[in-house]
Amino acid sequence: MANLKRVYMFSDDLEPIVKQLADEGRQLKWLEGGKGSNLAIMTSIGIPVPAGFTVTTDACLEFMDRGNKFPEGLTDEILEAMSKLEAETGKKFGDPSNPLLVSVRSGARESMPGMMDTVLNLGMNDEVAEGMVRLTGDERFVYDAYRRLIMMFGDVVMGVERELFDECFSQVKQKEGVRGDTEVSVEGLKETVELEKQVYKQHIGSDFPTNPQEQLLEAVRAVFESWNNDRAIAYRELNKIPHTWGTAVNVQTMVFGNMGEDSGTGVAFTRDPATGEKRIFGDYLPNAQGEDVVAGIRTPVDITELEQINPGAYKQFLDICEKLEAHYHDVQDVEFTIERGKLWMLQTRNGKRTAAAAVKIAVDLYDEGLLDEAGAVKLVPPEQLDQLLHPQFDAAQKPEIVATGVAASPGAAAGQVVFTAEKAVELAETGKRVILVRHETSPDDIRGMAASEGILTQFGGKTSHAAVVGRQMGKPCVVGCAAIELDYDELKFEVNDNIVCEGDFVSIDGAAGEVMLGDVALGDSEIVAVRKGDLDPADAPLYQYYDRIMTWADEIRKMGVRTNADTPEDSELALELGAEGIGLTRTEHMFFGEERIRIFQRMILGETTEEREAAAAELLPFQREDFYGILKAMDGKPVIIRLLDPPLHEFLPKDADDQQVVGNMVGKSQEEIADIVEGLHELNPMLGHRGCRLGITFPEIYKMQVRAIFEAACQLKKEGLNPIPEVMIPLIATAEELQICKDYTLEVARGVLQEQGVELEYMIGTMIELPRACLVADQIGAITDFFSFGTNDLTQTVFGFSRDDVEGKFIPAYIAQRILQVSPFESIDVDGVGALVRMGVEKGRTANPNLEIGICGEHGGEPHSVAFCHNAGLDYVSCAPLRVPIARLAAAQAQIDNPR
Amino acid sequence: MANLKRVYMFSDDLEPIVKQLADEGRQLKWLEGGKGSNLAIMTSIGIPVPAGFTVTTDACLEFMDRGNKFPEGLTDEILEAMSKLEAETGKKFGDPSNPLLVSVRSGARESMPGMMDTVLNLGMNDEVAEGMVRLTGDERFVYDAYRRLIMMFGDVVMGVERELFDECFSQVKQKEGVRGDTEVSVEGLKETVELEKQVYKQHIGSDFPTNPQEQLLEAVRAVFESWNNDRAIAYRELNKIPHTWGTAVNVQTMVFGNMGEDSGTGVAFTRDPATGEKRIFGDYLPNAQGEDVVAGIRTPVDITELEQINPGAYKQFLDICEKLEAHYHDVQDVEFTIERGKLWMLQTRNGKRTAAAAVKIAVDLYDEGLLDEAGAVKLVPPEQLDQLLHPQFDAAQKPEIVATGVAASPGAAAGQVVFTAEKAVELAETGKRVILVRHETSPDDIRGMAASEGILTQFGGKTSHAAVVGRQMGKPCVVGCAAIELDYDELKFEVNDNIVCEGDFVSIDGAAGEVMLGDVALGDSEIVAVRKGDLDPADAPLYQYYDRIMTWADEIRKMGVRTNADTPEDSELALELGAEGIGLTRTEHMFFGEERIRIFQRMILGETTEEREAAAAELLPFQREDFYGILKAMDGKPVIIRLLDPPLHEFLPKDADDQQVVGNMVGKSQEEIADIVEGLHELNPMLGHRGCRLGITFPEIYKMQVRAIFEAACQLKKEGLNPIPEVMIPLIATAEELQICKDYTLEVARGVLQEQGVELEYMIGTMIELPRACLVADQIGAITDFFSFGTNDLTQTVFGFSRDDVEGKFIPAYIAQRILQVSPFESIDVDGVGALVRMGVEKGRTANPNLEIGICGEHGGEPHSVAFCHNAGLDYVSCAPLRVPIARLAAAQAQIDNPR
Repeated sequence: MANLKRVYMFSDDLEPIVKQLADEGRQLKWLEGGKGSNLAIMTSIGIPVPAGFTVTTDACLEFMDRGNKFPEGLTDEILEAMSKLEAETGKKFGDPSNPLLVSVRSGARESMPGMMDTVLNLGMNDEVAEGMVRLTGDERFVYDAYRRLIMMFGDVVMGVERELFDECFSQVKQKEGVRGDTEVSVEGLKETVELEKQVYKQHIGSDFPTNPQEQLLEAVRAVFESWNNDRAIAYRELNKIPHTWGTAVNVQTMVFGNMGEDSGTGVAFTRDPATGEKRIFGDYLPNAQGEDVVAGIRTPVDITELEQINPGAYKQFLDICEKLEAHYHDVQDVEFTIERGKLWMLQTRNGKRTAAAAVKIAVDLYDEGLLDEAGAVKLVPPEQLDQLLHPQFDAAQKPEIVATGVAASPGAAAGQVVFTAEKAVELAETGKRVILVRHETSPDDIRGMAASEGILTQFGGKTSHAAVVGRQMGKPCVVGCAAIELDYDELKFEVNDNIVCEGDFVSIDGAAGEVMLGDVALGDSEIVAVRKGDLDPADAPLYQYYDRIMTWADEIRKMGVRTNADTPEDSELALELGAEGIGLTRTEHMFFGEERIRIFQRMILGETTEEREAAAAELLPFQREDFYGILKAMDGKPVIIRLLDPPLHEFLPKDADDQQVVGNMVGKSQEEIADIVEGLHELNPMLGHRGCRLGITFPEIYKMQVRAIFEAACQLKKEGLNPIPEVMIPLIATAEELQICKDYTLEVARGVLQEQGVELEYMIGTMIELPRACLVADQIGAITDFFSFGTNDLTQTVFGFSRDDVEGKFIPAYIAQRILQVSPFESIDVDGVGALVRMGVEKGRTANPNLEIGICGEHGGEPHSVAFCHNAGLDYVSCAPLRVPIARLAAAQAQIDNPR
Repeated sequence: MANLKRVYMFSDDLEPIVKQLADEGRQLKWLEGGKGSNLAIMTSIGIPVPAGFTVTTDACLEFMDRGNKFPEGLTDEILEAMSKLEAETGKKFGDPSNPLLVSVRSGARESMPGMMDTVLNLGMNDEVAEGMVRLTGDERFVYDAYRRLIMMFGDVVMGVERELFDECFSQVKQKEGVRGDTEVSVEGLKETVELEKQVYKQHIGSDFPTNPQEQLLEAVRAVFESWNNDRAIAYRELNKIPHTWGTAVNVQTMVFGNMGEDSGTGVAFTRDPATGEKRIFGDYLPNAQGEDVVAGIRTPVDITELEQINPGAYKQFLDICEKLEAHYHDVQDVEFTIERGKLWMLQTRNGKRTAAAAVKIAVDLYDEGLLDEAGAVKLVPPEQLDQLLHPQFDAAQKPEIVATGVAASPGAAAGQVVFTAEKAVELAETGKRVILVRHETSPDDIRGMAASEGILTQFGGKTSHAAVVGRQMGKPCVVGCAAIELDYDELKFEVNDNIVCEGDFVSIDGAAGEVMLGDVALGDSEIVAVRKGDLDPADAPLYQYYDRIMTWADEIRKMGVRTNADTPEDSELALELGAEGIGLTRTEHMFFGEERIRIFQRMILGETTEEREAAAAELLPFQREDFYGILKAMDGKPVIIRLLDPPLHEFLPKDADDQQVVGNMVGKSQEEIADIVEGLHELNPMLGHRGCRLGITFPEIYKMQVRAIFEAACQLKKEGLNPIPEVMIPLIATAEELQICKDYTLEVARGVLQEQGVELEYMIGTMIELPRACLVADQIGAITDFFSFGTNDLTQTVFGFSRDDVEGKFIPAYIAQRILQVSPFESIDVDGVGALVRMGVEKGRTANPNLEIGICGEHGGEPHSVAFCHNAGLDYVSCAPLRVPIARLAAAQAQIDNPR
């Protein structure tokens, strides 16, 4: 970092900075934050941006390292930049005769909307205010700005509760008998300023600082510190943003959208972020500051109305949008202000969008020649596809719509109404689906929003907090639904003469902006409906975009994608969504049917091999039918079937009555059955008598399963199909275990094939889900056809984390304390679990170059983990049917980033 | 193996065979077995050995590989060797006019006394018997030999129950009205032969084979197969002998100890195997076959009486013994037969001995110039030291001796009487101490003997089965105790008018041969008594030998030995036994005192940090006192103290009454306490909220412990001592966890040192007991002073084995099925756990070259694991106090085998 400075002007030449950062393997926005780097870039390509400078993220990290103290020299660097700014603008900071006012805003490497702090109008004091009145002749504007500065500075920088300042304003309004902010008299604004100063002094113990330099430096400090406020931490946890990045601080000349009707402020997307449609999308609020739009307090007009208000500025704005898209090759989310008719761009960033918009925009940009196939594929976040695949309201069953609001984030959601974020979290933790209903949301509601199925607000527009965050989280969201009348005190709302209380069900359609009463059933998404043949692709434009992206992804990716499916229905769905085989069929649930469980219990309770074999023989036809269905559905594609995995006690009744029933069946008393259940009880069942350990102590079970698999396959073969069964033996720790289970598996398989006179392509392999299996993967690999990493269990033993015990308990505390960035059950732990996976792959392939290697843990459908699997050289990932497209896309992106 | 044959004559030139084997990295006894190689060696150094040949272990492995069928050509090779044998002896197999009779005996790589099968007198049939009568004129001898052949062949080779043949003989005895075998008339013996032939035909369906070749080949097959009989498998499991070795078969010319009073048979040790005294030790049985001695049925005379019986043979025997010791540099266990005055050596092998004998013999052989220091150190099996260190009867408390027998295996044992091996196993499994009391023991009793504290037999001598096996297992054993009268039917014995029933307590002293009634208390062993200063070394000859060996061992070894101790008493004992520090002090038990547990419960139940800190403050003085005692005892030596490890629910009551007490204490209802206990319950506590996870969520506990450690150390320092505390943080999975705990540990430590104005040598380190800790050992090593591998827990997660759940359950089945050779909790799993330990060492040292690395799992006191630790480059091992000498010796042997 030798040559890097801590402070850069927007107008500094970018080329040398970018070059030096590239040498360090860094990008401009890692140093200057997203907002800062984009302001500098816009400046460099000739877009009108108010002059300013950026204090870097490196400076923030130094600040935090020193226990929240400015590193040596930083103050001087900031004040020097301030002098340059004065030169650029021709104004002077704190000079009543020609005052320069600035904003101070955070700007991290990735956008964290509303999570950190902003202070506007810095540089004002009584003298400057008076000077500004002289210059502008607009007392109302000046004292409104002053009022805002004291409030923001007191709240954001000094930590006085905002409500105390709001109260000053309310007091004045009450006194004057007015309601709206703009109705307050100039005298009232002046009085508010004085009241706020009193509040400030009362709570801080000293006067509001009149020295602009002091205001500036304190504001910078406050923005640095805001990186670690609770909202920001929660946001980063939710969005998997490292806590170690820090934020940059942008100091920028103020421009004012509230200088009268020829002024205003806007927020817009260069394309519709909900649908991807190529049209300017956003809000414009005349005579207002920017935060008024985002806060959703006043309802703005549609951005297109600016054409009427200021056609020149509107035209210029459209040109800038086009220029920005051409530069960034992506949709932009911009903020601007018009000050007395002149347009100023305040921010640009890649626009967050819904999945539907993402696929359309990617395809459109390709068609417009702005992206190639790989670029288009990279533009769609795989995790987002989830939104496109999950169920929607079933059109046939949709009940009466009781209210309509702004369609802010698409998708269907139904759940019980709650009115606070806390309640949302509380109920969600008990497994309930909830819909969060608020006047509007604020950053404090983040956790509650994440816990909800959907969000409904009474106020706010397309770019209000609820709308932005909802789209980003993929949560269905309806905002500005004026028809509902919320009563927080009574925990209810009224809508069209219906009273909806906390706990009542409502359903919302975020694509249509519709609100329905009750728990409306969900049906297939558009994409699933097309793939199932229930919808004509011609009637499904979204499907067409999706399909082009996925076709490109499939052409690019090198890694296979299979599915985890236990039924023919799931298998068929996965096949439609692009699965190239089954990576995991679990067989345990197959024993829970009414009739089967009794037979299975007789097998477990059998005291001799003969008794167990007899019961197994009765189960055989059921299992054969199960496997027949799945193998048939996956005709011609490999199907990995895992032999029984869970401990036997899971199949025996805990309940005395049920124990009596089972006892009667096998000629034992309830007490005897209870004793057996007790005897099978384990202190740590996760590390107990299960998996292949059952296959070794009770081979009858596995033998029956293998027979069922091969009999089913033979039957299909005779029917002219091409079943490819792959038998998977779970929980192998030693090659000897595998050898024993494999030997009898082969014996049974060959026996069946001989009996039936059928030849068949098949494999016998093993799940690699214990550390020891990775450590001796050469010994195991030498005697097996395939490995399938079970990274769920592997994560449990590598960390010593019992998923059931830790996931809801101390893992959240661990993430909060930054011990973990994300739960290792969600995204694969590359350093630990990943190291074992790599070792397993290497040792396994060394011993057996033909070894087929995949993963069937839940990580197989999580994009970061899919990228890891690609980099580790796996042949395929396997995941739940609805995650297959996500894995396909993630695998393609991994290939683009790291070709193999 | 190209040039190796499957059959070797004892008289074949050994040099080329040994050379070729050495090229393959093998030893002679690996190919020919212990017995066979020693017969060949004895032959080669001119000792009189009946001619014979050996079928190799390789042939046995081929036989087993082919599903228990002779490999091609083996029959021819055996018959060819038979021809050579005929040439060497000048006799002919099956020729009535000059008959050659042979024995067929098993002989594995390591001695497995009595575990596999033997057949004698092969080559007899009716014609040969008649011819032998003509040649010897001794009908009694001939038909006794014939009777024995049919019985052994029927039993051992064909699997007819031995009792059925015994009954034939009993029938004849009854008819003749005699009791002893030798009292039966010649006619009676002939009749027995005929009765046995009938039994044979009745059970086998064909006549006893008259073809000697057929007898021979069948006998070889039976010996091969006996490798896998239940007794042999059990023996191997107990003695950690691989199931994959196979056995050789020795075919040897018969010599007869039962050809009259100038014949006889003996079993002897070249030195006393119980005490190590340099004198011939053994039994001689005139006019008998060898198996009569071992079976303990007839009580033999002391070997020294042979001097009177046959002074020439006795002199020759003593010379041979000396020659053998000089050749083998070790004590020999020999078998011999005198046939009509001529001495024949039948077997030699290194003699099993007690630990007391082992140390004396090693020192004596050193003093005699037969061994150097390393040789002497290598001669003592570390595991055996256990016998020397464990408690003996307290001399002061010894009650009346009710009977005296032969002192067969030293040591003191007390327990409840059982009369069957099955009962011994059954009671031992419930945690009871038992003494197995039998007429005599047989190989079928092996498991029962292993399960017992000690063994008492009514019959048999120093070399009877019970005596040999007892010594080998290190079980106190008194044999030939004629004063007890056993009644198996009534499950009792009578001794000096006392009736002792099953379940009553007796105590035996195997060194003195004494039997006492009741459960006699135990006191320190001689070595411990000397070390504690309770016994003058001059009065403790055993101690002197031990001390010389241990001094040599300490000079040789490169690895440190510490102890695991939780109390000052244990610390002092360990110090006396050579511990160089404490590798693990567990702190959890310290909270279980009557007064402490209540305070600790209040801490756990505290709802605020303040409440928990207040309770912690009350515990502080107790903990400080604990640490003061241990640090004082270990003055000047490092003491690793592990912060609290087990989950908190272990400290809360499960019982409703106790919950009520606790509830009253903290102002909650019993139901509320029950709810809290329920809330802390975990499905897999092994993988749950424990170790450093507690230190992160409840730092108050760890902070209090750290304060107590450093306050205690400061106090000692002020008293002029030199405490060296090393704080160990358990269950680390990530460097971040360690960083958090280390930071506050350092803060508290520095705070205490500053308060007290004391400077101190100390370390902060971590336990490496999770796979992930090994995988990221570089990240962890970079921020810590030491690693201590917790291989108990590591084994659990590497294998996915919950020790509590699997050890008594399927691990025995796994060993029986040869999936595991030994429990990985007993001896470290080198391939899996060992690979992670090596990785941890390498990564840790790379990141931090000064890292101190040890092990504190139970493996630290197990010789094979100690050798692994030496090879992996650990700085020290740590083990229980009484295992410290074992670890010292094992570390020295590891250095001799693999110098570093």
